[in-house]
Amino acid sequence: MASDPTHPLRARLREIADLDGAVSVLTWDQAVAMPPGGGAARGQVLATLARLRHERWLDPELERALESAEAAAADEGEGAAALVRVVRRDLERHRRVPSAYVARASEHASASYDAWLAARHGGSVDRVLALTERTLDLSREYAAFFPEAAHPADAWIDAVDEGATVATLRPLFDRLRASLVPWVAAWSQAPEPAPLPAGPFDASVQLELALSFAAAFGYDLTRGRQDPTEHPFAIRFAHGDVRITTRVDPHDLTQVLYSSLHEAGHAMYEQGVDPAWEGTPLAEGVSAGVHESQARLWENQVGRSLAWWRFALPRLRERLPAFAGVTPEGAYRAVNRVRPSLIRTEADEVTYDLHVMIRFDLECALLEGRLGVRDLPEAWAARYAGDLGVVPTGHVDGWLQDVHWFSGSIGGAFQGYTLGNVMAAQFYEAAARDLAGRDGGVDLDRCVAAGDFAPLHAWLREHVHRHGRSRPVGRLLRDATGHDLDVRPYLAYLERKHAWQAAAA
Amino acid sequence: MASDPTHPLRARLREIADLDGAVSVLTWDQAVAMPPGGGAARGQVLATLARLRHERWLDPELERALESAEAAAADEGEGAAALVRVVRRDLERHRRVPSAYVARASEHASASYDAWLAARHGGSVDRVLALTERTLDLSREYAAFFPEAAHPADAWIDAVDEGATVATLRPLFDRLRASLVPWVAAWSQAPEPAPLPAGPFDASVQLELALSFAAAFGYDLTRGRQDPTEHPFAIRFAHGDVRITTRVDPHDLTQVLYSSLHEAGHAMYEQGVDPAWEGTPLAEGVSAGVHESQARLWENQVGRSLAWWRFALPRLRERLPAFAGVTPEGAYRAVNRVRPSLIRTEADEVTYDLHVMIRFDLECALLEGRLGVRDLPEAWAARYAGDLGVVPTGHVDGWLQDVHWFSGSIGGAFQGYTLGNVMAAQFYEAAARDLAGRDGGVDLDRCVAAGDFAPLHAWLREHVHRHGRSRPVGRLLRDATGHDLDVRPYLAYLERKHAWQAAAA
Repeated sequence: MASDPTHPLRARLREIADLDGAVSVLTWDQAVAMPPGGGAARGQVLATLARLRHERWLDPELERALESAEAAAADEGEGAAALVRVVRRDLERHRRVPSAYVARASEHASASYDAWLAARHGGSVDRVLALTERTLDLSREYAAFFPEAAHPADAWIDAVDEGATVATLRPLFDRLRASLVPWVAAWSQAPEPAPLPAGPFDASVQLELALSFAAAFGYDLTRGRQDPTEHPFAIRFAHGDVRITTRVDPHDLTQVLYSSLHEAGHAMYEQGVDPAWEGTPLAEGVSAGVHESQARLWENQVGRSLAWWRFALPRLRERLPAFAGVTPEGAYRAVNRVRPSLIRTEADEVTYDLHVMIRFDLECALLEGRLGVRDLPEAWAARYAGDLGVVPTGHVDGWLQDVHWFSGSIGGAFQGYTLGNVMAAQFYEAAARDLAGRDGGVDLDRCVAAGDFAPLHAWLREHVHRHGRSRPVGRLLRDATGHDLDVRPYLAYLERKHAWQAAAA
Repeated sequence: MASDPTHPLRARLREIADLDGAVSVLTWDQAVAMPPGGGAARGQVLATLARLRHERWLDPELERALESAEAAAADEGEGAAALVRVVRRDLERHRRVPSAYVARASEHASASYDAWLAARHGGSVDRVLALTERTLDLSREYAAFFPEAAHPADAWIDAVDEGATVATLRPLFDRLRASLVPWVAAWSQAPEPAPLPAGPFDASVQLELALSFAAAFGYDLTRGRQDPTEHPFAIRFAHGDVRITTRVDPHDLTQVLYSSLHEAGHAMYEQGVDPAWEGTPLAEGVSAGVHESQARLWENQVGRSLAWWRFALPRLRERLPAFAGVTPEGAYRAVNRVRPSLIRTEADEVTYDLHVMIRFDLECALLEGRLGVRDLPEAWAARYAGDLGVVPTGHVDGWLQDVHWFSGSIGGAFQGYTLGNVMAAQFYEAAARDLAGRDGGVDLDRCVAAGDFAPLHAWLREHVHRHGRSRPVGRLLRDATGHDLDVRPYLAYLERKHAWQAAAA
């Protein structure tokens, strides 16, 4: 190790990674376990840790260690080059942001999150509005640290989806919208499929079932766990500890099911990163879009397929006899029903991206200053009425439904969902093709129906997971699929899957 | 605040308190939630936080801020004087310990804890022995940082029970032993009382019941929560977040019951500290002994009283019909049965301190170098055979039963339990006397039987809890009870309570 010229750099990154790990545990606890009285102190502790972390990024010793590593990287191979490239990018971003801002923003994030949670349980909406106004001020202040950006959202977007901008995303969204709007109009006219059994189902049975499916996918429970929360999420503490949370509805098994499959997709990505990157910024998923692609691939390409229901139904019936009368085809139709609705996380695949576009546009308008936070609830409702023909019944199924804007910042929060849907189709198509082309030809559909998820998991680990942040998104996509970002596999997938609904209508 | 001469000091202490809070959350998570794969990284994160915290203690700016506060304290009243006294004490202790030692010891603590947990579930005992040898080396190294101490255990004891030493504790233990040994011999001959119903009882019902009793005592659940763990504990993250854990045995309700009542006693102490001390080292319990007194007071003086069973039994019967045939007198006799046994936390009140003395003597022998870790299992078994006439069946009910020596250090871990028993009786006697002397005369026994725990809780908050570490133990005891540490109330309590067993025998 002593002769590794990146060693001094890695020692400093390790300390930052330890602080990141602590922040993650505190954040997980805040959502999963913390009693209401813990909120104020938790905000302060998180703010202190964020400040200490930021100070370490700005330590001149880190710059010196990075320069030494950069000087040596050319002779040290691809790994060292990737390390210095990513650390240089992160460092230059951290340099733009003053330490005082980091502490203010971090403490504000906890207060905002607590107020959001309270408002969802009948607490003051006005308090959320007031705190969100401050969130927007902080977010615009942050955007101004990157004056070269063409749009105030670009600094936020680049932070999580490197290279993407408002200017590159708008044409992608327009192309998608051109197909989705007529599809929603046509397919949502299909006759109502028979609903799945409505319970009530015991929460612990639901949680066990959902976790057993996540484990069947390959989510390693010796390095993970699942807990119920208001808003499901996946979080990485370390290579050996990547957790998911999920949501239980006594009357709707699909809530826990698709929440867990989705979050397991995120978690398997983090669990699959090459442990050689542990303790560096490369030890996590490369972008919001690629991360979401892994979640949506397991949730939708796999979990909403007919083949998956052939595998899953017998297992469901063992614990929930009410599913005895359900056929794979019936379940498949029930979970792929297309209908405009209010809640993004419960939306079908065809309307889903329209939910994302509403949020993306509102974020841009807020950051540009064209929309004020006090006008956000109304603007939200107007867009839902216009784009989807549905109107929120209140705040909770309207603008308060997603945690993102109440976690400390507005900006860059949603484009990754649609990028993820597009990439999920691209990865799945490439995996199916690669596996079919092997000696003996592995049929991915048949694997899924048999509950053999190992070939797909291994393909994703090889082509996506293990690289962590060591390959930029563009190269990752090209190496894995042979193409740059391409919307066609996604549109083809949606049409292939949902066309029966047009025939039925 | 700007004119408060302790403000600069408090700002620095706040940062240390935030790091303490983070460490506590990570420690709680390690015991309550962490999957096995998380252990290695957790150890490293905790070591980094311990090092950062130690660096902050040794920061020359803290010394300067403390000197300024010390210079001004005389004019600022009792609070400022208490603050500088306690911070000076803590700082001088931290100065003795090199930063490198802190990081090594902290990381070792996590490895040791993980190995202990694994060994309790069938993992390698040899690994625990090897790690505990290192623990002993580290603990002796620590003791040597305090060369003025008369005994190598004294530095450890003074860290948690200020002022106590091996030399002061031995006479106390001898005096107790002189009464306890003949009492155990006599009272353990009493006929076996009828056992309590043996279940099996549903774990979630047990947890709910135990927590409802803790809440009835006054444990504030808006600032707390309860989870099941291997080894019950209470832990403070902040004034607004003080948690307990407990242990469930399907066949023995008293496990969850007395674990929860005990830990609630600890937690109510922490919840009751004057919030003005928040963010300083004074915001927590003053010593291991006083802390334990609060736990044992609620567990034993209250929870093992006949009056308590009059209150509790009807509530138990609502959820556990098997208790329908149990009388308050029957339950009282069952939970006060005196019998030599193997497990300290399950021991009756009369044998309990003999368990403590075995551990205290073994700690002293280990630290003196008279006993090696490899000989500890045998030495443990020999002492149990000699003192209590029982022999462990294996490691888990022998030397591996308590977490303390596997949490990173050997020393100062057990004397607090006996100090706590002695003080609990002293506090309870004083509270009963004070309450009886009020206008109208409040009968504490009658309050307990009626489930009215508020008068006792208020007395403890007024005389013990609110002071945190602001009053030294000796003064706290004198102000609250009118006496220095006095073993007589404890011995009188034990004799009064258990004498019927002599009569029965």
